[in-house]
Amino acid sequence: MTTIIKNATIIPMTERDKYFKGSILIENGIIRRIGEFDCKDADETIDADSMIALPSFVNAHTHLSMILMRNYKDTCENLQDWLSEIFPIEDKLNDEDIYQSSRLGAAELIQSGCTVFADMYFHAWNTVKAVKEAGMRAIIGQTFMNDAADAEFRIEEIAPRILEAIGDDDKIRLDAAVHAVYTSTPDCYERAAEWVKERGVRLHTHLSETRKEVEDCLREYGKTPVELLDSIGVFNVPVYAAHGVHISRAEMEILKEHNVSVVHNPSSNMKLASGIAPVCEYRKMGINTALGTDGASSNNNLSMMKEMNIAALLQTVANMTPSAARPYDVLAMATICGAKALGLDDRIGTLEEGKDADITLINTADVNMTPVNDPFSAIVFSADRKNVDTVFCQGRKLLENGNLLTIDKEEAIRKTKERWNDILTR
Amino acid sequence: MTTIIKNATIIPMTERDKYFKGSILIENGIIRRIGEFDCKDADETIDADSMIALPSFVNAHTHLSMILMRNYKDTCENLQDWLSEIFPIEDKLNDEDIYQSSRLGAAELIQSGCTVFADMYFHAWNTVKAVKEAGMRAIIGQTFMNDAADAEFRIEEIAPRILEAIGDDDKIRLDAAVHAVYTSTPDCYERAAEWVKERGVRLHTHLSETRKEVEDCLREYGKTPVELLDSIGVFNVPVYAAHGVHISRAEMEILKEHNVSVVHNPSSNMKLASGIAPVCEYRKMGINTALGTDGASSNNNLSMMKEMNIAALLQTVANMTPSAARPYDVLAMATICGAKALGLDDRIGTLEEGKDADITLINTADVNMTPVNDPFSAIVFSADRKNVDTVFCQGRKLLENGNLLTIDKEEAIRKTKERWNDILTR
Repeated sequence: MTTIIKNATIIPMTERDKYFKGSILIENGIIRRIGEFDCKDADETIDADSMIALPSFVNAHTHLSMILMRNYKDTCENLQDWLSEIFPIEDKLNDEDIYQSSRLGAAELIQSGCTVFADMYFHAWNTVKAVKEAGMRAIIGQTFMNDAADAEFRIEEIAPRILEAIGDDDKIRLDAAVHAVYTSTPDCYERAAEWVKERGVRLHTHLSETRKEVEDCLREYGKTPVELLDSIGVFNVPVYAAHGVHISRAEMEILKEHNVSVVHNPSSNMKLASGIAPVCEYRKMGINTALGTDGASSNNNLSMMKEMNIAALLQTVANMTPSAARPYDVLAMATICGAKALGLDDRIGTLEEGKDADITLINTADVNMTPVNDPFSAIVFSADRKNVDTVFCQGRKLLENGNLLTIDKEEAIRKTKERWNDILTR
Repeated sequence: MTTIIKNATIIPMTERDKYFKGSILIENGIIRRIGEFDCKDADETIDADSMIALPSFVNAHTHLSMILMRNYKDTCENLQDWLSEIFPIEDKLNDEDIYQSSRLGAAELIQSGCTVFADMYFHAWNTVKAVKEAGMRAIIGQTFMNDAADAEFRIEEIAPRILEAIGDDDKIRLDAAVHAVYTSTPDCYERAAEWVKERGVRLHTHLSETRKEVEDCLREYGKTPVELLDSIGVFNVPVYAAHGVHISRAEMEILKEHNVSVVHNPSSNMKLASGIAPVCEYRKMGINTALGTDGASSNNNLSMMKEMNIAALLQTVANMTPSAARPYDVLAMATICGAKALGLDDRIGTLEEGKDADITLINTADVNMTPVNDPFSAIVFSADRKNVDTVFCQGRKLLENGNLLTIDKEEAIRKTKERWNDILTR
């Protein structure tokens, strides 16, 4: 199976501010050629004259099934109050709830040009099922919280079930997702890190999201969350840490030394009044910084298009200079830096010959994209979900002319509503 | 002509957090009934079971034709540097440029659920022509800058041309739009205010957008921009002032005393690194605060949907509390408070019997709106332009199923591109 995308404005994300008019040949899921070449003899040819082609987005931190709790009691005064509303609901969730909401979440991600996400949620075998049906890529999290005994139970009883669901799908991987220092003991983190090391995967965690988290950690352990995880060797395995809002310069040195990636979630941090992450400093120090939407219940959507816009605006005003977050830099956070955080940069994150064909086409033939002038600014500042036209994941088309091809949208909406109404009566 | 919108979730914006399931009867452009009633015998009936019906948005500060310069040299370090790139382009603009770009701008506003905007731009008779064709409502600005002699020239030579273009269209009004204290002398403001008083209209101006503007004004006049305009009696006419980023508590007292409305433009203020307006303080003091997108070249779009989201997130994190900008409050800024700023609240801004039927229907039957849970959060945090289904202006349908009815989208895009390419070669 070969597909040619011809006449596109291509943003390869291989070097700063580079873009060119050209074509892309996809063969068996792989980008075989990119640039100017004779466009004939493909099974399918897409004339992308009004399109910008770029690497599909990497949502490096989310809780997919939290789509169920979208706009639910979301005007609490802070993260802790909000979690106290959310946790009792989560205790009621069952397999079918997670499956249906994951399917709807996958649909929302695809609609915003995203083909891979790093998830942290319960009953994850159901999310795996939804992801496989959707034809997406995913880094699923084996969740960990509480203590080492609980970690042991999860490793023995839950992880095998998720791994069985994944089977031989090379687009899905199981990482450890340890919730946070305020819900997981140091020996829980240690056991998870050990499991990560054995399996050659990565560790996903929440880190220094709120001032309260840092203060409580200092009180309990005499160390900040970064210092605590460093002291017990967690950073000796590859880690991607969500939020990183309250981090000192000295802590940044620790993150840098251990090659920890930070996942920035600006909408969630703003909405929950957690604070503004020092993204500009991370980038200056060479700390790999990715982008995530967090769960839909603290955002309240899963649009990477919107998240890029908000990230660029927030860093600009927080640093009082537009050079704090140029459109190219934000686009890098949403693509190649996300791929690096998840250890997928050998396969996705840029458009290059030999890489997997995870490609998004943005339609500029719309009122809000006229004129384009600068394709980077156009994507980050002007575009929205309505402009996302086509999405390929490993060469398979998941979205075409804005329509989902692998998920029945109406059914996914109806089923999720049914589940949510049922949960509220349990 | 009668239309019934039935089974909608109606947010009337008449009192805090109120919403209900019901129907709306539109007759000859007016809302005749709202609530529960027998829905038959209308010329048209819309089943809005999956829709939220709310007052169409009021974009209280924009420069419509700046859509031409969307994404153009938009990575300058501050407002002044950026203006030095923009002003030479503006000197080249002609009637056809303004007409075509206004048409495209009107299309973008309608697509985001907006039926009225307060404009500040040149050659405005062309914008009037585009607005009339689009069937929208508009407050057009007779621009003023430089000195009193220049103001006199504009009043004598330009305003009559705009007024002639408006003719008897009761949806369009001509206000004075005085650029700013750094481009317009005190006697220019005085002459514009006198003209406003004679005509019984309002005065639109930029006010305290950047720290530099305030410092320069203090150096030149020994007064802040607010103090300067107060000292020469500008606030004795009804004023709506865009930005209001750098305003002291004492200046707020002046604005409050004179019933000046502030128009918040969060995207533009963030993008140009102007700062964060003290919206929370304005609202606490009872200063009427509206919302605007500013021009597309400093945003870089005209979506009131996106602007509400960003306004809510920014005020939440700036004040480190979600109660700083509840979804209802932000929705009020985008509707009734905008109508008040423009002196249109007797006709639009809420859904009430007797008011003009400026109504937007948001389609919640989409992945990003499932489940709705809270309609206010859903509109402000989850929704985007893709969810805007139907827009009425004075009972006339301008958008249906997301499609523009009064503007040929493809032609508007093509013509604007042609004009822009032509401008670049002049």
